[in-house]
Amino acid sequence: MELGSMQKLASDLRRDIVLATRMLVNEGVMDAFGHISARIPGDPGGYLMSRACAPNLIAAGDILEFTLASDPARHRGAQLFAERVIHGEIYKARPDVMAIVHCHPASLLPFCISARPLVPVFLMGATIGRHVPFWDQQEEFGDTTLLVVKPEEGRSLARALGQDSVVLMKRHGATIIGASLPDLVFRAVYACRNADAQSAAHALGNAVALSDGEIERAGALCSRAGGFSSRTWDFWQHQLELSGNGPARSDPVGRSR
Amino acid sequence: MELGSMQKLASDLRRDIVLATRMLVNEGVMDAFGHISARIPGDPGGYLMSRACAPNLIAAGDILEFTLASDPARHRGAQLFAERVIHGEIYKARPDVMAIVHCHPASLLPFCISARPLVPVFLMGATIGRHVPFWDQQEEFGDTTLLVVKPEEGRSLARALGQDSVVLMKRHGATIIGASLPDLVFRAVYACRNADAQSAAHALGNAVALSDGEIERAGALCSRAGGFSSRTWDFWQHQLELSGNGPARSDPVGRSR
Amino acid sequence: MELGSMQKLASDLRRDIVLATRMLVNEGVMDAFGHISARIPGDPGGYLMSRACAPNLIAAGDILEFTLASDPARHRGAQLFAERVIHGEIYKARPDVMAIVHCHPASLLPFCISARPLVPVFLMGATIGRHVPFWDQQEEFGDTTLLVVKPEEGRSLARALGQDSVVLMKRHGATIIGASLPDLVFRAVYACRNADAQSAAHALGNAVALSDGEIERAGALCSRAGGFSSRTWDFWQHQLELSGNGPARSDPVGRSR
Amino acid sequence: MELGSMQKLASDLRRDIVLATRMLVNEGVMDAFGHISARIPGDPGGYLMSRACAPNLIAAGDILEFTLASDPARHRGAQLFAERVIHGEIYKARPDVMAIVHCHPASLLPFCISARPLVPVFLMGATIGRHVPFWDQQEEFGDTTLLVVKPEEGRSLARALGQDSVVLMKRHGATIIGASLPDLVFRAVYACRNADAQSAAHALGNAVALSDGEIERAGALCSRAGGFSSRTWDFWQHQLELSGNGPARSDPVGRSR
Repeated sequence: MELGSMQKLASDLRRDIVLATRMLVNEGVMDAFGHISARIPGDPGGYLMSRACAPNLIAAGDILEFTLASDPARHRGAQLFAERVIHGEIYKARPDVMAIVHCHPASLLPFCISARPLVPVFLMGATIGRHVPFWDQQEEFGDTTLLVVKPEEGRSLARALGQDSVVLMKRHGATIIGASLPDLVFRAVYACRNADAQSAAHALGNAVALSDGEIERAGALCSRAGGFSSRTWDFWQHQLELSGNGPARSDPVGRSR
Repeated sequence: MELGSMQKLASDLRRDIVLATRMLVNEGVMDAFGHISARIPGDPGGYLMSRACAPNLIAAGDILEFTLASDPARHRGAQLFAERVIHGEIYKARPDVMAIVHCHPASLLPFCISARPLVPVFLMGATIGRHVPFWDQQEEFGDTTLLVVKPEEGRSLARALGQDSVVLMKRHGATIIGASLPDLVFRAVYACRNADAQSAAHALGNAVALSDGEIERAGALCSRAGGFSSRTWDFWQHQLELSGNGPARSDPVGRSR
Repeated sequence: MELGSMQKLASDLRRDIVLATRMLVNEGVMDAFGHISARIPGDPGGYLMSRACAPNLIAAGDILEFTLASDPARHRGAQLFAERVIHGEIYKARPDVMAIVHCHPASLLPFCISARPLVPVFLMGATIGRHVPFWDQQEEFGDTTLLVVKPEEGRSLARALGQDSVVLMKRHGATIIGASLPDLVFRAVYACRNADAQSAAHALGNAVALSDGEIERAGALCSRAGGFSSRTWDFWQHQLELSGNGPARSDPVGRSR
Repeated sequence: MELGSMQKLASDLRRDIVLATRMLVNEGVMDAFGHISARIPGDPGGYLMSRACAPNLIAAGDILEFTLASDPARHRGAQLFAERVIHGEIYKARPDVMAIVHCHPASLLPFCISARPLVPVFLMGATIGRHVPFWDQQEEFGDTTLLVVKPEEGRSLARALGQDSVVLMKRHGATIIGASLPDLVFRAVYACRNADAQSAAHALGNAVALSDGEIERAGALCSRAGGFSSRTWDFWQHQLELSGNGPARSDPVGRSR
C-alpha cells in the first residue's frame, strides 16, 4: 500500500474512532471511562487509540499511535490510559481483530458481578456468539486495583477471550472485539441490549439461548460487512448529532470544541 | 377514485409513514431496525414502504411502491428490507389491515424470549386484543437466521397472526397491524407500555388481564377513528419535534437532511 | 372579591394549569392522556379545565370553565374530555380540594394492576398520606370501557377517595387532589417516585411504610404552602424550559405554537 | 495564606459548587431537593453552601458562608436549607472532609428503605468503601418529620458516619463526603451506579462485594487527586453543557438566568 493511502486510512480511522466513542457514550455503553482502539488495515504492527481523556470530548487530535507493546509510537508525554495493554495483547493474539473496546456498561455489570452466563437471546444478540467467557483477575493475580495494567494481566485476559468476541471481566466490565469499527459498535450495543433482554426475560421466568444453528446463522448475518452494522452506524451517528455532541464537521481531524 | 386524488392520498401516506417511523423511534418502539408499511386506500394491490435505511433518517423520497408479492413496483435497484414478505403476506390475508409495523422493542423482547403470554392489563393496553399469538419460526423452519425472508415464512407468520392485532415472534420481535397509521402507532406504543406494566405488576406479585367484556369495550374505544389515536398522533408528533428529529416542514415529500 | 381580581386569578390559573400539565408530561407523570383542573379561589361553583387536547400542546386558550355538573359554562362546541365528571364530583364532595389530576403514570400502573397497597416509604412519599384507597369500577358497574364517564361513576370514585389524597383506579390509573396547583404537582410526582422506590425496595426484599407519626409530620411538611412545593414548582418549570416545551413567554394566555 | 488567594479560592469554590450541583441534577443524583457544601482550604471554621433554592437554578450568587454552627456568617435574611446542620456537624467531626452532599437519589432509596446493606460490587463502586453505615433517626429521636434539623440530630448522623464515606439514612436519603468537590461528585455518582448494579445483580441471583484487598486498592485509585475524578468532572460538565443547563460562561459568579 502506498504511503498516501495509508495516511488517508489512518485519518479516516481517527475520525471513526471519535465517532464510535461518542456514539457509545450516547447509547449508554460507555461512561466517563472506557476506550476504543483500531488497527490500520495493512499495518499489523500497531494500533490507534486516544490519549487518556473524557470520551464525550474525544477529538481526532487526541488519537495516538501505539506499538503492540502498547507504548506510544512517538514520545509525546501525553497522559495515557492505564489499561492499554488490553488492546495490545489482544491484537497480538488475534490477527483477525481490527477494533477493540473496553467498557463498563450498566447493562453488562450485573452479569460481571453475578457471574450468571450471558447468552444470545434474540436475533441481534447473536452477535455475542455462542460462548461469552468470564475472566476473574483475582484467580491469577489475587487482590489488585482491578485495572488491567501489566502485560501479563493483558495476556491473561486475551487468553480468556480466546477465539470469542466478548469477554466479561469479574466485578469490572467487558472487552469486546470487532472486524471493523462499525462491527465493533454493533456488537457493543447489542451485547448490552441482549443483556437487558436476558435480565428482563429471566424476571418473567425464562431466558433460554438461541439454538446453536440460529447463533451461527444469525451471528453471521450480524457480522456481514456492509450489512446490519452499516445501518446501525448511520442510525447511531444521527442520534449522536441530535444529542448535540456530533463532532464538528468543519474540522474532521481537529478538536471538536 | 380519480388519479389525482389517489396521488394526493399516496403523497400524504408517504409523509405519514415518515412521521410514524420517526415517532416510533422517538418513543423507543423502533431502533435501527424495523419498518412500517401502509396501503393506499382504494388500491388493494400493493403497499408503500421505505427502501432499507436507518429509520431515524427516513424521508418521503425513500418510500417505494411494492406489489403484494413484495416486489418493487418499479425497478430502481434500491436496497430493500429483507423481511418485506411480512407485509405482503399479511396484506394478502387481511383485507382490513391498512398499515403494518415490524419491530423489536425492548419492552416486548422479554415476552418474545420467555414466551410468557402478553395480556391487556390496563385500559389503553386493551388495544392488543384478547389474544396475542406467539409464532415460533423454529417449529416449522428449523434453524434459520431468524429473519422472515421467504414467502412461506411470511405466510406462516400471517397464519399465526390470524384475525388478531399483534403477533410475537420467538426470540425475534413483533409484528403489529392497524386500520390506519395513527391506529398502528397507537397500538405499537401501547403494546409496549402494556408489556412494561405487565412485567412490573408481575414483579409486584400479580398481573391479571382485563375481563373479556372490558377488553371488547376498551379495545373498541382505542380503535375508534378520530378518537384516542388522533390525540396520540398529535402528542407524539410534538414530542418528535421537541427531539429535533421532526421532518423538515419545507420539504414535505423530500429528504429531511 | 371584585370582578377584576377574580379575572386576574382566573388568568393566572389558566397559565398555571398549562405549566402544571406540561411539567407533568415532562416528568413522566402524564402521557398523551390525562387532565388537570383547578378551582378559582372564591368561586366554589365551578372549575377550569382544558378542552380535550394533547397535554404537551396545551395552551391557556384551551382552558374552559365548567360547572360542578361538569358542563361547559359557555357553549362553544369544543371537544371535551369524556372523564370530566371525575373532577366535578370530587369538587362537590371535597370543598378543600382546589386542584385535581387524572392520569395513568407508568410508575403507578403496576399498583393499579396488582392491587398491591401503595404506602409512603420515604420522606417526600408521605405526601400520599397514610392510606391510598383502591377503586374497582368493575365491582359496582360491571364491564365498562373503564372510562369514568357517568356522573354516578364519578360519584363512586369520589366516595372511594373519601378524605384521602390519592385514589388508585383498578387497571386504569389514578386521581390525585391538591390544595393548590403546586401542591397537586408535588403530590403527583412524588406519588410516582414513591411507587418506584417501593417497587425497588420490594425487589430488595423489604418495603415497609413510614410510621403513622412520621407520615403525619412529614406529610404536613410536604403540604405546607410556600414550602417544598414552591421549590419543586421552580425546579420542574426549569426542567420544562430545558426540554424546549416551556409555554411561549410572550403569549401568557394564548397558544404556545 | 494571603487574603487575595483566599478570596480567589472562595470564588472558584462558589463556581465549582454551582457546577457540582447542576451536574448531580443532570446525572439523576439530585432532584429538587438536596444540597452541596464545601470548605475553603485553609479556613477550617466554616463552609460555603447555597441558600435554599432549586438546585437546577443555583448560581454563584446564591452561595453563602456558614459557621460550623451552621449559622450564616453574615446576616442576610435569605431563606436557608433546614438541614444545614448535617454539614456543620460533619465538618466539626471530620477535619479531612472538604465537601458534603445530602441527597435522595432514586438509586439509593431502595437501600434506605429495605435496609439491605450497600456494598461495593465493581471497580468504581469501591469509592463507597468497605462499610456503608445505616442511620435510623427513629431509634434515637422517635417520630420526626425525618428532616435533620436539630444540632443533636446532625451530631447523631455524624457519629453514624464515623470514618466512613457514605451514610444511608433510613427512609430518607444519603449523606456523602469528599476530599474535594470532584472527589465528592465522583463518589455520589458511583454510589448510585453501584447501587443500581448491586440491585440488578441481586435480581440475577448473586451480588457479592469486592474482597477487602480489592476495596482498599481500587478505593485508593478512585480517590487519587487529579485521577479518575478529574476525568469524570470533565465528562459530567460536558454532559451538563449538552443538556443546556451549563452555567452562563460570561457570568462566572452571577446568576445564570
